[in-house]
Amino acid sequence: MHTISENMSEKVFNNDKKSVSRIISKIETGNSNSIEILKELHKNTGRAYRIGITGPPGAGKSTLTNQITKYYRQQNKTVGIIAVDPTSPFTGGALLGDRVRMSEIGCDDGVFIRSMATRGSFGGLSRKTIDAADVLDAAGYEIIIFETVGVGQSELDIAKAADTTIVVLIPESGDSIQAMKAGLMEIADFFVLNKSDRQGADTAITAIRTILMFKNHSDKDWKPTIIKAIASENGGTKDIVDEIERHKNYLLNNEMLQKNRQKNYKVRIKEIVEELIKDELWKDHRDKSLEESIVKVTIGETSPYQVAETLFREFKSSI
Amino acid sequence: MHTISENMSEKVFNNDKKSVSRIISKIETGNSNSIEILKELHKNTGRAYRIGITGPPGAGKSTLTNQITKYYRQQNKTVGIIAVDPTSPFTGGALLGDRVRMSEIGCDDGVFIRSMATRGSFGGLSRKTIDAADVLDAAGYEIIIFETVGVGQSELDIAKAADTTIVVLIPESGDSIQAMKAGLMEIADFFVLNKSDRQGADTAITAIRTILMFKNHSDKDWKPTIIKAIASENGGTKDIVDEIERHKNYLLNNEMLQKNRQKNYKVRIKEIVEELIKDELWKDHRDKSLEESIVKVTIGETSPYQVAETLFREFKSSI
Repeated sequence: MHTISENMSEKVFNNDKKSVSRIISKIETGNSNSIEILKELHKNTGRAYRIGITGPPGAGKSTLTNQITKYYRQQNKTVGIIAVDPTSPFTGGALLGDRVRMSEIGCDDGVFIRSMATRGSFGGLSRKTIDAADVLDAAGYEIIIFETVGVGQSELDIAKAADTTIVVLIPESGDSIQAMKAGLMEIADFFVLNKSDRQGADTAITAIRTILMFKNHSDKDWKPTIIKAIASENGGTKDIVDEIERHKNYLLNNEMLQKNRQKNYKVRIKEIVEELIKDELWKDHRDKSLEESIVKVTIGETSPYQVAETLFREFKSSI
Repeated sequence: MHTISENMSEKVFNNDKKSVSRIISKIETGNSNSIEILKELHKNTGRAYRIGITGPPGAGKSTLTNQITKYYRQQNKTVGIIAVDPTSPFTGGALLGDRVRMSEIGCDDGVFIRSMATRGSFGGLSRKTIDAADVLDAAGYEIIIFETVGVGQSELDIAKAADTTIVVLIPESGDSIQAMKAGLMEIADFFVLNKSDRQGADTAITAIRTILMFKNHSDKDWKPTIIKAIASENGGTKDIVDEIERHKNYLLNNEMLQKNRQKNYKVRIKEIVEELIKDELWKDHRDKSLEESIVKVTIGETSPYQVAETLFREFKSSI
């Protein structure tokens, strides 16, 4: 007799696309079954190479993902794509367009594309994204690409999910790179300057190089490069895939791949524990007790820190 | 006999600038004394009106803060400014420049300016920023301005700290507003289009208006307006302060000011409790036990969720 999660896992191992899709939906909605399935799946994960692609809106990340995917398909490698959409009524349109553009590779049986919306906390999305990648990994996809727009926290989370992180920029980003994309600059294993036939490309490259001189990559022995691309004409795709390969080999030769993954596991497990505790912490009665205290805080009878300490003590004695 | 924190609080109530400064430093470094002082100070807070100013880099937020401050000073109101700097080697220069520009108002005895760097978690900064505002509030500053660059999560946090949130944009932001600043658009009580003498100003206003048509402000009865400004020439300052006043009156007349503040207290207290628990949770021995499990996760002997659940159980039985 097999349990439901064992049965589901078996189907994932055989890359039954419907089951893969269904489990990712369960992950997305926070269905508790998904946890049991993920536990089963875990032993078959770790084989896929995970690539993160991020950058500002309009940088051409989807087109690039498209081209890289086609390149890997020519090498007969299977590719799973997880596109992280920030939840916003304003970006919905553009991202939907990107998805449509992907229809070309979407029909390929060796490709699995999935959009996930960033609802709720950023931490929450990050966890669900990685959970979804584990499903694709267990289903046997050899390459997993996370594609996320460089908005808010999500682009920094991507570095915790990927083996190689690519930051896509365009000549137009030049000016504001320094101030705005500081977070992005620090997570890039290498840069792609897309639309590099446009005016300002060389200036942009100089700007990125200058920034890189003042910057330490989280791995001090790895020097991020800048690859020129024109994704719309498939220019630079081979160079990008070669650079991914070069970074992968670097990681393997220096025993960094496992080390980085272990670091990422640590962050991930911590997040899961903290979420479990938060769920327990903010159960109805305690949330209600907090509501009641707030009135007293407002009139100065007690202070936020005093209420917090009381709640903390109550929590400790309750479990 | 007074305790040290009572003595310190007394000095804050008398607006002893050195003590105010010292306590904010304690808050910034996470000195545990600061908690006791904040508890003492709390009863004298809630009188200041808190304004959040955010927007992309280069939008002129500092100049605008400068002008608004001078305007309030002409009305004899005291002003405390908390400038939130994202920690990054690349932005340091620009922000330092802003600080220098502020020297004009910095010498005014009715003004207190303080920069705080966003080290570590965003949640952490948000808490420290609000703590610092409480110190200024208790010291009697009538207006408190949070100024923060629209990068990452910090701009969304600002809405949880301010009574009125202003989003500053410039004509040049026009194009990417839709996709990029989605988070910003949703927290704005009103917009300032700075540098509105530049080309593209009307297009930008149309773009913002269009977005606003599709958007619900968190308070459905409040319709955010767009104020034109040329901060470098002090153009529009009166309009901005008038609009702050109009929003304040709206909040007061609809009993929203207290309600919003209570909502913010709730978020803040929750964050403090969660941080207290995290401190307890990741004490050395548990962190070490996590490290040991990770090796087993890597070789597939156990899974992240299993390890997390074990750690959660251990935590529960240990406290």
